[in-house]
Amino acid sequence: MTKITQNVVALAGGVGGSKLAYGLAQIVAPEHLTIIVNTGDDFEHLGLYIAPDLDTVMYTLAGVNNPATGWGVKDESWNMMAAMARYIGPTWFQLGDRDLATHLLRTTWLHDNYSYNQVTKELCRRLGVRCTVLPMTEQPVRTMVQTESGELAFQEYFVKLKCEPVVTGLRYAGAEGAQPSREVVSAVRQSDVIVFCPSNPLLSLDPILALPTMRRVLAASRSPKIAVSPLIKGQALKGPAAKLMKELNMDVSATGVAHYLREVLTGFVIDHADQAEEEAITNLGLRTLVTGTVMTNNETKVQLAQEILAFAGIS
Amino acid sequence: MTKITQNVVALAGGVGGSKLAYGLAQIVAPEHLTIIVNTGDDFEHLGLYIAPDLDTVMYTLAGVNNPATGWGVKDESWNMMAAMARYIGPTWFQLGDRDLATHLLRTTWLHDNYSYNQVTKELCRRLGVRCTVLPMTEQPVRTMVQTESGELAFQEYFVKLKCEPVVTGLRYAGAEGAQPSREVVSAVRQSDVIVFCPSNPLLSLDPILALPTMRRVLAASRSPKIAVSPLIKGQALKGPAAKLMKELNMDVSATGVAHYLREVLTGFVIDHADQAEEEAITNLGLRTLVTGTVMTNNETKVQLAQEILAFAGIS
Repeated sequence: MTKITQNVVALAGGVGGSKLAYGLAQIVAPEHLTIIVNTGDDFEHLGLYIAPDLDTVMYTLAGVNNPATGWGVKDESWNMMAAMARYIGPTWFQLGDRDLATHLLRTTWLHDNYSYNQVTKELCRRLGVRCTVLPMTEQPVRTMVQTESGELAFQEYFVKLKCEPVVTGLRYAGAEGAQPSREVVSAVRQSDVIVFCPSNPLLSLDPILALPTMRRVLAASRSPKIAVSPLIKGQALKGPAAKLMKELNMDVSATGVAHYLREVLTGFVIDHADQAEEEAITNLGLRTLVTGTVMTNNETKVQLAQEILAFAGIS
Repeated sequence: MTKITQNVVALAGGVGGSKLAYGLAQIVAPEHLTIIVNTGDDFEHLGLYIAPDLDTVMYTLAGVNNPATGWGVKDESWNMMAAMARYIGPTWFQLGDRDLATHLLRTTWLHDNYSYNQVTKELCRRLGVRCTVLPMTEQPVRTMVQTESGELAFQEYFVKLKCEPVVTGLRYAGAEGAQPSREVVSAVRQSDVIVFCPSNPLLSLDPILALPTMRRVLAASRSPKIAVSPLIKGQALKGPAAKLMKELNMDVSATGVAHYLREVLTGFVIDHADQAEEEAITNLGLRTLVTGTVMTNNETKVQLAQEILAFAGIS
């Protein structure tokens, strides 16, 4: 099959985003595909710089991801963690032995003053990922989760506390002063379509949209801007999107997500199961595609990617 | 058995040193035993602070050492290295998955401004090591190996080049300006015996002796200062001691080691196999003990420790 040679940009967070990124990577020529990834989840742990969403996207594109967990690499072992537990007891953030190579290398290279883009590019290249994967910004942005008992760092909320605290607000610390890199801006400007992957709108897409330049560049783009609903029948396939939206008094539905993102979109993709919402979404001023959005295997990832691009007039 | 409650200090490097340290730890009350360990082998790799001799001593005392390799921990796996190889090809310094926990924690704690002594103490404590293990100094000292083709960092010579280059000299960079810590000085001053473990005299003991204050404190001590020959019949049980001594035109024998260290010693222990050298060593002004010095199992480690202490009048 001839690969698509129009410029495709995708904005992605973790699991859902990486699945669609995988689908896009199978049908778009690598030099024409750029995945811009949320870095609001980044944090430091045991002296290591850890970028969970970048890793999930990179591992998924490289075909080494762990489908059972949704994060980390397949065929993983946990012997460092076991030895660490002997020193400091159980730790809440799991670091697999193979996964550690990524964290060690990224941390070392960043410490050696390679840029975040360079480091990401080198890690991807060496894993055989041929499209471009970019952190949303090279500057620190940290998603902070406000709860009734105070503000939590994202991984503390997400991993340590398993998303259990009731969320009263979110803050993307550093975002207002952070700039998307030249490469990110250029990719968006030269794009023929911008795909918002079915990632958590609050935790994965909002940090990207919180960069002021990103909002401006997206607004200036005349390309189709298509989001895929991460909710089906009011539920996320994975992650806390529905719980979080409910706690923030949002409409917990595909329509709710479309409404929330409508300013930056031209089109919206919902699952057959939510067909009844098509009219409401169209009424928001968005073109609407109803199709199968559950990506259970590689074929359905590719199929959804194809349908989105066709819907955007890309072929 | 009642444990010895006189103060025993041992100076140690890697494998041979840690075996005797293990023997001493079985018969000396933990609050009366201090192991002062060479840190000239320390280096940084992949952003991790690695202390090979401290780790070997600590792992051996904790009973988690890998007897097959002489370094690292038992029941080790190598999955981080395998994943790392995918990124950057094979690397010459092997980092086991379980061993990584030590390096990550030490590096993190040092980065958090805990002192090298504190970090060592905490690692030991959490592994159940009850005697005191001290780095020879908290300041950086790096053993540099001079060869015909230039100067090499120690691990490059020792691990990467497998001790193959012909050595023309050794340098302990930083040693002249480094101070043994207050704890090290105090342990030596309060010692009732000082044992020089059967470690490489050039690579393990000399870096310790290169600290000017250490030389002075040792010279001022009236305690018996007993070394155990690391050579038996002109051969080291492990490591490059014999090769190195030959390249530096030293007498490659127990007597040669005794001669080399005679200024700081009062007594010397040789193996039965070298009984013929007893007189030559006595003629150096050292009391000499001839006994079995090959530590093939825990019993022989304890037995050698007992004989050394008895020889020093400690019981």
